[in-house]
Amino acid sequence: MSGYRVAVLGTGAVGQELLRILEERRFPVAELRLLATSRSAGQKVTWKGETHTIKEVEPADFEGVQVAFFAASTGASKELAPEAARRGAVVVDKSNAWRMDDTVPLVVPEVNGEAVEKHRGIIASPNCSTIQMVVAIKPIHDAARLTRVVVSTYQSVSGTGREAMEELSRQTRQIVDAEPVTRSVYPYQIAFNLLPHIDAFEPNGYTGEEMKMTRETRKIMGLPELPVAATTVRVPVYISHSESVLVETERKLTVAEAREILSRAPGVTVQDDPSRNVYPLPLDAAGQDDVFVGRIREDLSSPRGLHLWVVSDNLRKGAATNAVQVAEELIRRRLL
Amino acid sequence: MSGYRVAVLGTGAVGQELLRILEERRFPVAELRLLATSRSAGQKVTWKGETHTIKEVEPADFEGVQVAFFAASTGASKELAPEAARRGAVVVDKSNAWRMDDTVPLVVPEVNGEAVEKHRGIIASPNCSTIQMVVAIKPIHDAARLTRVVVSTYQSVSGTGREAMEELSRQTRQIVDAEPVTRSVYPYQIAFNLLPHIDAFEPNGYTGEEMKMTRETRKIMGLPELPVAATTVRVPVYISHSESVLVETERKLTVAEAREILSRAPGVTVQDDPSRNVYPLPLDAAGQDDVFVGRIREDLSSPRGLHLWVVSDNLRKGAATNAVQVAEELIRRRLL
Repeated sequence: MSGYRVAVLGTGAVGQELLRILEERRFPVAELRLLATSRSAGQKVTWKGETHTIKEVEPADFEGVQVAFFAASTGASKELAPEAARRGAVVVDKSNAWRMDDTVPLVVPEVNGEAVEKHRGIIASPNCSTIQMVVAIKPIHDAARLTRVVVSTYQSVSGTGREAMEELSRQTRQIVDAEPVTRSVYPYQIAFNLLPHIDAFEPNGYTGEEMKMTRETRKIMGLPELPVAATTVRVPVYISHSESVLVETERKLTVAEAREILSRAPGVTVQDDPSRNVYPLPLDAAGQDDVFVGRIREDLSSPRGLHLWVVSDNLRKGAATNAVQVAEELIRRRLL
Repeated sequence: MSGYRVAVLGTGAVGQELLRILEERRFPVAELRLLATSRSAGQKVTWKGETHTIKEVEPADFEGVQVAFFAASTGASKELAPEAARRGAVVVDKSNAWRMDDTVPLVVPEVNGEAVEKHRGIIASPNCSTIQMVVAIKPIHDAARLTRVVVSTYQSVSGTGREAMEELSRQTRQIVDAEPVTRSVYPYQIAFNLLPHIDAFEPNGYTGEEMKMTRETRKIMGLPELPVAATTVRVPVYISHSESVLVETERKLTVAEAREILSRAPGVTVQDDPSRNVYPLPLDAAGQDDVFVGRIREDLSSPRGLHLWVVSDNLRKGAATNAVQVAEELIRRRLL
């Protein structure tokens, strides 16, 4: 057999993107099992010219599977990831279920690929907003040691899922047609509006999304004390998250040094030529795998700070691409 | 005569809002002169039930005028504000022409109303993104002394003007109808996209808009050394700017203290009850005069930092309302 027996659990926006990326990156698939919790079971999906029927998942489906990509809910992952791991699969999980579990590596290959070595059957892929930020700030840390990160995000609706993309689309059409605006996914209208609210609020006033950026960044970077503060905001954009990031470093980096370091960094494309209106845009990043960094400039409010504008496709590098890259990292290290 | 002889120069989004606000606030107008540079001269406007014809402006139009609201271009203001002032009018200018002139007060009445006392015929109203921020952070400064401000903005297209609102509307319609997207105002598509680019780039990599937030904040607050760093971003929202603001203070303020201080502050409405999904939204702020503050929380990355989410209608408090309030401040101080 050439290639691996692969399962994909989940058929939402990320699950679909996963199938595209497995094909694009020519991931060595010998057998593909498409699984879902009840809702979409029975539907047919064409992949590489073959028709697959989505099967309602049960633990036995993971028998013989070598790598299982989970793009399902946190609940489904909590229940099924151990079942899959017990049957010998390595689970690469996109949900929030395992990320902060001490026995589960949380991996962005460009940042901490070596962490896959310690897996015990489950590897977590971080939250989308975290992934693109750590890809951009890790090279800066390596060069100058991070002492602080402050980030404000501009996150697209696809981060919420397909229903949210439909909600933005429907509300836009309703406004264009001067009809009443209806909503079902977000607590308030998202079309032509912003929601400073992603995930549930925690007692400290931060949202779950904001605390993910703090906790996950620390774990991935191996810097458990790194001060990280996030403000996360949903914007009426379909695909790609954008982030206004301030980093402070132990050693001062000039803009030229930072640009040079980032232009050599894996997974990063620098788009930074203000005089020619070159800077990252969510519309341009959509469909791309890299993390785009621009607007690099010295902080005017601290002696060793830098501002970055970081944009990436949240369904790809922020989710599906990163998961596939984790599996590729396992192959490279002969762990699969 | 009861009331003042008032001129309004400019018929764009801000000029129209000015007329609405003069009426809403019952500003004592004895005579109204509507002026414009050539483009819209000759058009008719109804104000308080009377029809006014917009006249193409010339210096003599300011003879006898007591207060002249300028909502025109920087070029027009540079040329005409001294002409109006020479004829005895007090010019309240919304443009960028005079803001950083040492002889011209830059005024947000809630923050530095006393500065109007020193006017020599021209008073500048700050940039929209600056106004709402200083209204929110001044009470915090008074209580705990600001040492640093870092802000990322989410600015609506009406800040660019009426043509930009039409561009967002047209592009949205084109996308809904699956037509090619055309653009004339912004360098890239704004519908379902973000532009980290407002005003021209300066040599330090910051945009003019970002540097306005630094320079104007320092001048208005009377803190010429205050470290202020801004990242300004255009978002596909019609009205209201939103800002993710981090302030650091000399004395530590708790969230409860900050909430209490802000709830007593002039021009501020606190909307901050995460458990009930209460936080400021641009859609809600549109049409309102206050600056709305929420998401108040302790910074996780510094010992004496606070995060605020600050939203306000950029055409009203960010422009027209502030200008009218400046004139009211002159009246209150018997300077008009």
